Amino acid sequence: MSNSFSRRNFLQTSALAGTGTLLTSTLQANNLDMILDKDSIGKSKWDLDTPALVVDLDKMDRNIKAVHTRLQGSGVGVRPHVKTHKSPFIAKMQIAAGAVGVCAAKLGEAEVMLENGIKNVLMTTVNVTAPKIIKAIALRKKHKGFIQAVDNPQNIQDLQDAAKAAGIKAEVVLDIDVIRRSGVPPGEPAMLLAQMIDKMPNLRFCGILAYDGGVQHVVGFKKRQAQALKAYEPVIKTYEMMKAAGMNMEIFSGAGTGTYDIMSVVPGFTDVQVGSYVFMDRQYIEIGGARNEKVFDDFETSLTVMSTIVNNYHAGRLTTDSGSKAFTLNKPNPLVLGEPDFNYNAGSDEYGVITFEKSNKTYKVGDKLELVAPHCDPIVNLYDVIYGTRNDKVVQVIPVLARGKSQ
Amino acid sequence: MSNSFSRRNFLQTSALAGTGTLLTSTLQANNLDMILDKDSIGKSKWDLDTPALVVDLDKMDRNIKAVHTRLQGSGVGVRPHVKTHKSPFIAKMQIAAGAVGVCAAKLGEAEVMLENGIKNVLMTTVNVTAPKIIKAIALRKKHKGFIQAVDNPQNIQDLQDAAKAAGIKAEVVLDIDVIRRSGVPPGEPAMLLAQMIDKMPNLRFCGILAYDGGVQHVVGFKKRQAQALKAYEPVIKTYEMMKAAGMNMEIFSGAGTGTYDIMSVVPGFTDVQVGSYVFMDRQYIEIGGARNEKVFDDFETSLTVMSTIVNNYHAGRLTTDSGSKAFTLNKPNPLVLGEPDFNYNAGSDEYGVITFEKSNKTYKVGDKLELVAPHCDPIVNLYDVIYGTRNDKVVQVIPVLARGKSQ
Ligand SMILES: Cc1ncc(COP(=O)(O)O)c(C=O)c1O
Ligand SMILES: Cc1ncc(COP(=O)(O)O)c(C=O)c1O
Repeated sequence: MSNSFSRRNFLQTSALAGTGTLLTSTLQANNLDMILDKDSIGKSKWDLDTPALVVDLDKMDRNIKAVHTRLQGSGVGVRPHVKTHKSPFIAKMQIAAGAVGVCAAKLGEAEVMLENGIKNVLMTTVNVTAPKIIKAIALRKKHKGFIQAVDNPQNIQDLQDAAKAAGIKAEVVLDIDVIRRSGVPPGEPAMLLAQMIDKMPNLRFCGILAYDGGVQHVVGFKKRQAQALKAYEPVIKTYEMMKAAGMNMEIFSGAGTGTYDIMSVVPGFTDVQVGSYVFMDRQYIEIGGARNEKVFDDFETSLTVMSTIVNNYHAGRLTTDSGSKAFTLNKPNPLVLGEPDFNYNAGSDEYGVITFEKSNKTYKVGDKLELVAPHCDPIVNLYDVIYGTRNDKVVQVIPVLARGKSQ
Repeated sequence: MSNSFSRRNFLQTSALAGTGTLLTSTLQANNLDMILDKDSIGKSKWDLDTPALVVDLDKMDRNIKAVHTRLQGSGVGVRPHVKTHKSPFIAKMQIAAGAVGVCAAKLGEAEVMLENGIKNVLMTTVNVTAPKIIKAIALRKKHKGFIQAVDNPQNIQDLQDAAKAAGIKAEVVLDIDVIRRSGVPPGEPAMLLAQMIDKMPNLRFCGILAYDGGVQHVVGFKKRQAQALKAYEPVIKTYEMMKAAGMNMEIFSGAGTGTYDIMSVVPGFTDVQVGSYVFMDRQYIEIGGARNEKVFDDFETSLTVMSTIVNNYHAGRLTTDSGSKAFTLNKPNPLVLGEPDFNYNAGSDEYGVITFEKSNKTYKVGDKLELVAPHCDPIVNLYDVIYGTRNDKVVQVIPVLARGKSQ
């Protein structure tokens, strides 16, 4: 269980970073022009084989625009998180709408974005293993818009060494801890690391990132707002310390879909890292928004799953072809559109089981259902493609190029 | 929400079945010789980038042999379910060890197996949509060892029509309902369908299949045994009715890893559809076996996930790079090998959070951990490859060719 990444090993391997050998074979094969299921173009979403992941492109377009409209005048930009959609196709739409760049959670996602036309990628997760550090620096060497998050001294030194070996100066931001999951604790510890980065000849300090993963789904806007701003106080103080010390604070990034319109008041805050807003999901619908306390309707639910009923022998019960491999086990349960009384259990690997007391129609085997996902990010990670529809007809098959890129 | 698959449409499209047009492009690209990450061969599993899914091939070999050894003399065969591993590479090992064929849960899995050298595939799920019926019959036309499960009259008629259009006689088995999820209810309803199939000129009735998905994880062997045999009584009666009526009962298939040594006493039973036994997981370890009431150790845990610690700033707390996209949300939590006191929460999409009171060592950022998965099937479905090791060194990279084939 020991870590084989000794300093010596690292410096040996990091010499390779200079060659910038990046994974390209699969990426070349999977370019954006590839349409995996051409025959589906023009089909109604109701005629797709199931389970199928579908996005209503009109709704998604409106979501992508809405976040900019709502933030207009705040001076805060949008840096969407691609962990949600894992698709350069959608990232390009976000950039076209005015995003300053995108965020990536995994290096594999960052690579897929950069190698497929997205110029500015902020890596919000630290990369601490030798292969990842080497790859991060190779990516930065090839793509000037790559920025890496850091949160510990060893990693800063390793990135410095790798950047030096690669003959570059690499941009880094400091990740500040909000919920004891990632990042350096705010205040003095953060300040010390910022100063350490500032002294590294091959690193360029670009500011901070602080994401509160604990507050996004707090139900009720006022409650969420109070909790988010309270939790952010140490981060704001840290920002002010750094600013006062004359550090480069060109980036002060954070917030998600649940707090995009809350964090925009934080002084110095530069951009929101919204992810789920493009698709929305049942978890987010239920939190309530600033204008509608009951339903969070700032954005529309654009992402759904098409399923087929495979068994109807028992009263008050239907089986579908979509279980946990189609929906994940996230809660609340998937929501069957048009059937508010249906309780959908996606707990089996291969089957969904619906129980109900009343239904709006009688279902035959072979009938299709459309469902809203509980949580959009991990469900997208199950599918190779998303069917993009307009007026319920497939107009685009979107490859989820970074699917499974969990490294 | 209506089903566009009218009889008329179906008969039109089913004419296409005769051409046997199967999806081949991706399958050709993804043949078994392809090694996605050749550089990893020879590496220690501790040096793999993470999250990485790893299988100990020695343990898996022993599992694959053990099920045959344990069933020796029972007259019951083994028809492993590929829903667990989704890999023709592993299916070939199972066939080589004496399996009579394999089972598939999804048509996409069956296709991947048949197109990659597995001759006998029993499709345990009904296929009720037009595209799936057409594809199933095309698969049967090309591969004589394909057998389709059915459970309703419309579907029997549709398969008959498609088989006729394709100019073949297709093998079918009847799926008998045990837990009100799939299958036709046992007794008279099942008997009527069996007779209907028997009269179809282009279908050949081959017996029954009945899987009890509710009993596999009942804790305690005796309790599980009693419950499994009790629930199976109506199935056994149905088998006897069919047998007495002179029907072809060459297949009477069922059981999983939790009941493989229980169902083998059922008269007429031909084979167990064990899936998880190749890998094992935390859900199965905890059910207890016939010889060991505490731990189900009939098979060894061969499948693990390698993870990296990315944050250790807080006492009694560690963050890893492996969250729900690496582990799924199945319960119980992933088990950290060598650290019995660690509580691993994979509830975040991208991060795992460990909390503990005592640990056997002090962990640095970059240190690796090895974990047992909660539930093997859906975790395999997240990864493109499984690293096959012997003595902790990678000797084979196994592509999960049917990953994401949930249709
Ligand atoms: C660092 C970071 N930023 C932004 C987001 C986006 O959040 P959301 O999908 O809630 O908009 C996430 C999601 O987990 C995240 O981890
Ligand atoms: C029809 C059928 N047969 C066999 C199995 C294999 O079960 P196990 O993994 O418990 O061995 C499953 C698993 O869900 C199944 O659905």
